Amino acid sequence: MAEIRPGDPSLLRRVNTQATLRALRREGVTTLTRLGRITGLSRQTVEAVLEELGERGWVQESPPDGGAMGRPARRFRFRADAGHVLGVDVGANKILATLADLNGEVVATERATVSGDALAPERLERAERTALACVDRAGVPRTRVWAVTAGTSGIVDRSGRVSLSTVLPGWTGVDLASIAGRWLGCPGFAENDANLAMLAEHWRGSAQHAADVVYLLVGHRTGAGILIAGRLHRGRGGGAGEIGALRQVGWEDGSAELTKDADADQVFVAARAGDPEALKAVDRFAWNLAIGASALVLAVDPDLVVVGGGCSRAGDVLLVPLRRYLDELCLRAPEVALSTFGDESVALGGVRLALDHVEREVLGL
Amino acid sequence: MAEIRPGDPSLLRRVNTQATLRALRREGVTTLTRLGRITGLSRQTVEAVLEELGERGWVQESPPDGGAMGRPARRFRFRADAGHVLGVDVGANKILATLADLNGEVVATERATVSGDALAPERLERAERTALACVDRAGVPRTRVWAVTAGTSGIVDRSGRVSLSTVLPGWTGVDLASIAGRWLGCPGFAENDANLAMLAEHWRGSAQHAADVVYLLVGHRTGAGILIAGRLHRGRGGGAGEIGALRQVGWEDGSAELTKDADADQVFVAARAGDPEALKAVDRFAWNLAIGASALVLAVDPDLVVVGGGCSRAGDVLLVPLRRYLDELCLRAPEVALSTFGDESVALGGVRLALDHVEREVLGL
Repeated sequence: MAEIRPGDPSLLRRVNTQATLRALRREGVTTLTRLGRITGLSRQTVEAVLEELGERGWVQESPPDGGAMGRPARRFRFRADAGHVLGVDVGANKILATLADLNGEVVATERATVSGDALAPERLERAERTALACVDRAGVPRTRVWAVTAGTSGIVDRSGRVSLSTVLPGWTGVDLASIAGRWLGCPGFAENDANLAMLAEHWRGSAQHAADVVYLLVGHRTGAGILIAGRLHRGRGGGAGEIGALRQVGWEDGSAELTKDADADQVFVAARAGDPEALKAVDRFAWNLAIGASALVLAVDPDLVVVGGGCSRAGDVLLVPLRRYLDELCLRAPEVALSTFGDESVALGGVRLALDHVEREVLGL
Repeated sequence: MAEIRPGDPSLLRRVNTQATLRALRREGVTTLTRLGRITGLSRQTVEAVLEELGERGWVQESPPDGGAMGRPARRFRFRADAGHVLGVDVGANKILATLADLNGEVVATERATVSGDALAPERLERAERTALACVDRAGVPRTRVWAVTAGTSGIVDRSGRVSLSTVLPGWTGVDLASIAGRWLGCPGFAENDANLAMLAEHWRGSAQHAADVVYLLVGHRTGAGILIAGRLHRGRGGGAGEIGALRQVGWEDGSAELTKDADADQVFVAARAGDPEALKAVDRFAWNLAIGASALVLAVDPDLVVVGGGCSRAGDVLLVPLRRYLDELCLRAPEVALSTFGDESVALGGVRLALDHVEREVLGL
């Protein structure tokens, strides 16, 4: 056990700073008196901490509230724009960058297309350009971006390297975390796209109140992310959820069959309008999806299954048959919900992961 | 946050008692002086705590060590035999009861057979008789058993009721935890057999050093248990690991095919001797096992796969083809190990689960 010396001034200082910063972030604009009450610290200590935080640029004094009688109380606010984090979805056909402040509020997004055949250098160049355009469009100095996460299909190892990609040409072996960090000269991270989408839904979307979740990223390819006890479960090599690799569950084609002759969106629109051929295609797709999903549901017995990715735009026309087939294949019908963030969840999950780093390593929370 | 008042005498007393008890359990026979050094408590406080623990029957003064010069140091030991816990494997064809002391040391086991066709009352009566015989054989008063866990195939819900059994006749709906508690008038628990076997292997067996584990209980029927981050993952309804329910992975028959015409053990023996028909049967069985196992491996990406249950007696003749097929079906070859406790692991896992209860609720650790 680490020895704790209550008299250690640097430890005490750090604990006080953390308590004050946490209170400021939660409260918005707050008075000195209230900060003292929340943290249990003396007025003098709070003032000293606020001065230090002010010097770092993380806290700003607000104009006093004119409403009260007598000497107006000094008020302070956390400067959420002191720094920013970026999440970048490096997809098979699209790039989406999302910039957020230190409260996780999205301040800009930037979208671009890329060819599914693009080799790694072209895809990375497109991703970098989109990332920088997003930051510039927000009017945020590039030095104010403190962390970047890139999301991608395939297996990403603990160091942020793509250890296996069966979809993107030349993508296996790409050290995506390091490359993403170099775009803005800050710490870079990389994670499987379904894992990031899962994090976004757990943070602010459909999976907020669930602890064990199977998330299905359903687009041109189907991937899955797994949340256990409220935490992303990556597995030993980051491969958790890769049930699609098992030929017997038939995910290999993803929505390929659906998109062979027509755009998937068009098929879903036609199905919603009652077109019998389209309904049959969606039904086949739902069955195929359900087999792989049921393997994950039987393995994990989650509180919730979330359907996200591009195909989640289809809504009930996909969800209704999917629910029916899951009921048929699983021992107990799992709850199934649509994702809140659709195809924006991967980039938003990247924001969350980058924010985790900043909160831990920079803000010291 | 709960308010902690350092001056609270009852809280302080409890903390001191826990620290002393923990030290005693770890150290075996220990002197007063050493207990003071380990716990950081004064000699006077340690003496008061030991007196209280002695009155409860949990601590005993040992004869002084004659070796030292001067006044001999007073020595104390934790009375591991102050209470006991019982794990009972209520299987399709066998009952196995394992009694252990408060250190988890096994003091007796008792084994019985039961017909696979036996209805619930007969199976429960057999289980009770085996449980009591085990306690009596050890010479332990029945009142000294502080907790019992029964393990069984099928899905067991959080309250210890069998919510689904597809194998044992009349077994769905049995309130196994309550019934097991009544055998010895103490708290009763029930858990899926593969989950218990997994706990035993993580406690003292092949999975001691792994955090994420897929455990395969391979016998007349195949079940699975999953460990995530060092903790048993049960899932919402206790159904985690029930991949066998998915027809596409083909576990429905379990080792049925292997045992249709001969005892599985005989087939394994013949295979080890090089009999071509037996080798083919084992190979088919390994392939079948590998498909379901690979679904779990792809879902969870574990550190380790442990093969246990009756069929684990087969050893390498089963493990070699299983490893080969898992390598073929999974993205990355998982490590595969034989269970340490074979068909005794379910009862031993029951001991572990009962001990968890006693440590938490009785000893207050």
